[in-house]
This record gives sequence, C-alpha cells and structure tokens, in this order.
Amino acid sequence: MKFPDSLEKLIESFTMYPGIGPKTAERLALHTVTKASKEKVFALSDNLRKVVSEIKKCQVCGSITDLDVCLICSDEDRENKIMVVDNSKDVIAFEKTNIYKGKYHVLNGLISPLGGVGPEDINLSSLFKRVKEENITEVIAALPSDIAGEMTTLYIKKILEKEDCTIYRIGYGLPVGADIEYADEITLRKALEGIKEM
Amino acid sequence: MKFPDSLEKLIESFTMYPGIGPKTAERLALHTVTKASKEKVFALSDNLRKVVSEIKKCQVCGSITDLDVCLICSDEDRENKIMVVDNSKDVIAFEKTNIYKGKYHVLNGLISPLGGVGPEDINLSSLFKRVKEENITEVIAALPSDIAGEMTTLYIKKILEKEDCTIYRIGYGLPVGADIEYADEITLRKALEGIKEM
Repeated sequence: MKFPDSLEKLIESFTMYPGIGPKTAERLALHTVTKASKEKVFALSDNLRKVVSEIKKCQVCGSITDLDVCLICSDEDRENKIMVVDNSKDVIAFEKTNIYKGKYHVLNGLISPLGGVGPEDINLSSLFKRVKEENITEVIAALPSDIAGEMTTLYIKKILEKEDCTIYRIGYGLPVGADIEYADEITLRKALEGIKEM
Repeated sequence: MKFPDSLEKLIESFTMYPGIGPKTAERLALHTVTKASKEKVFALSDNLRKVVSEIKKCQVCGSITDLDVCLICSDEDRENKIMVVDNSKDVIAFEKTNIYKGKYHVLNGLISPLGGVGPEDINLSSLFKRVKEENITEVIAALPSDIAGEMTTLYIKKILEKEDCTIYRIGYGLPVGADIEYADEITLRKALEGIKEM
C-alpha cells in the first residue's frame, strides 16, 4: 500500500533538497494535493522552470543573475576592491548595509578536503585573474570563521601575497544584540583580539 | 538590492507550504539555481503539475487517489466496518500493520473551533450517509488524542449513537519502545485505563 504513483514521484522529487527528508517531502506533497490552491501549485511549477532557464552565474564575479554580467559588476562607479564571499546571499546581505562600495567575488563554495572540495572546485581561479586584469590592490575575505572558511581565506592569502595586493578579512567578534554569557569561547576570543580604542 | 525577479518569485512560491518561512524558501530557491541538476528541477516542476491534475479525493471515503473510487473502497472483500482517520497518511499507516481488514473514512481535517473548522468543513456528512447506506454497524474512531481529535471523536459518537451502530476508539497508551519515565502524564493515564489481563 502506497500513495498513487504521481504522488510518490512528487515526494521523491522534493527529497532532492538538502534538509528535506522523506517525512518532510511527504508532508509537502500531501499539502500540494490536499490544501494548496491549484494556482499556487502551477505558479511554483512555472517558477521552477523559469529560474532554471533564466538564472545564470555572472561571467565576472560568479554571483547569480539573469544577465550575462550582473548589475554590480557592470556598475562603473564601484571602488576598485573585491570582497570575496561564499554565496550570492552574502552579497545581498553586505549590500543592505550600504557601507561597502566595492566589487564582489562569489566563490559558490568553500575549500573542504573532508567534503572533497578543492580549490579548483570553487570559483577561485577567476578571482586571481580578476586581481591581475582589473588591477585590484585590495581584497577582503568575508568568509565564515569555520574550518572551511578559514582554509579558503588562507589559500587566497597565499596566492595573492605574490601580487601587489593587500589582503584583509572582515572583523569577527560578538554579534550585536548577543549576550556575552551565551557566546562561544572562540567568538569571545575573536572579540578580545578585535578590541578597539573608543 | 534583491535577487533577480524570477528567483524572488520562486522564493515567494515556496512559502506557500506550512513550515517553510522566508529563510527556508530562500535556501530551497538558491539550491534550485546553484546546486540542483536541471533534470531534477524539471522533474519536480512536472510532478507538481501532474499531481494537481491526477490526484483527487475518493468519492466514497475521501482518501487521496488517482481513481474515482479508491482501491480500498472498490475492494469487495473488505469487512463491513469503517475506521475514521484524519488523513490519507493514516490509512497507509494502518494498512501497513496488515491487521485491520475493514474500510476507511478520511476526514481531511478535525473539528477545531479555535481554528475556525466546524463539522461542515471536514468530510463528515458523507460518513453519516455511508453508515446508513452501507449498513455499517461498527465505526472505529482512530483520531489523535489532542483536543481537536477528541472533539471530533465525541461529535461522531453523538451523531452515530442514534443509529444502530457501535462506536469504538483505538487504544491509547504507552508507545512500544518508549521509556515510562519520559512518557507524559496523559499517556500514562491512558495506559492505566487500558490495563489488560495477560
């Protein structure tokens, strides 16, 4: 005894997403057939098709866009420095701060030997090419402070040290609004390393 | 600064599911464009369209099926009793036990005055009609033991008491494999009410 064929196939389809196991997939599929409006399901179906054909990676920075070159890369007023981030979400997050006016480079992954991800598997070689071709003298690594982020940052530093280019990293420390008592030890250590005169 | 239009629309589409908020929807949409294979995304898109056109509710019991009358309802060897459940998943769960050989009735919801769900909003009237027309003399309420399940069970009992029909409920108690020390008080009370001679 199973669900009808087409429903079983939909359940199977949903499990392609990380974090969606068989139980969640079943719940989503059942919501699709019992509760969701036809219009919304058709819209989801259409939107899935549309992103696959319309969304691509920017030829310059690797961020997702529906253009050949994304709006940031084609903006000539951007300062001549590059912030290196893991994914396109990070670009949007930094843009919302309205502070950084430079360019970006999206790696779409981080070096992780345990996960089988080497430097050649992420969008790195084009970063090194850009630094030379665009005469970039400032690169800011804005990667997570976990092992993969740390390895990737060090790799970038090692390669770019040979160039006429200063490498920075973003400041780590206590997030705004967080309680000191709940912060982990490494965050607190970073916060102490980042002590500044007021 | 936002994602490209088609991606924003996909994010919006994913939030139609309960339990999927803006953050999860964003994660799913980004996986769709950066990591998932085109084939899998197209398959998901097609399967969504397919279930909407193929899956309907059984005209007799209300369970989801791709036929007019589901396989269980059209099985003439089924015993002449009805087990009332909340949704089609429950039918599959009971069928897997291979113990119950009767028919089912799927409410597709539970009475919940706070949630604005009345008896007329769920698949109840057809249950009462079936009891008369199919000469059912045994109805088993297999609904959750929370407030909504309890209200629905009592409502069914009140209506069917007038008919020549015995109403049962499934046994509540300690789940197999569970530790007594971790069981909640109501479950333990149910377990004591259900004490049986060995």
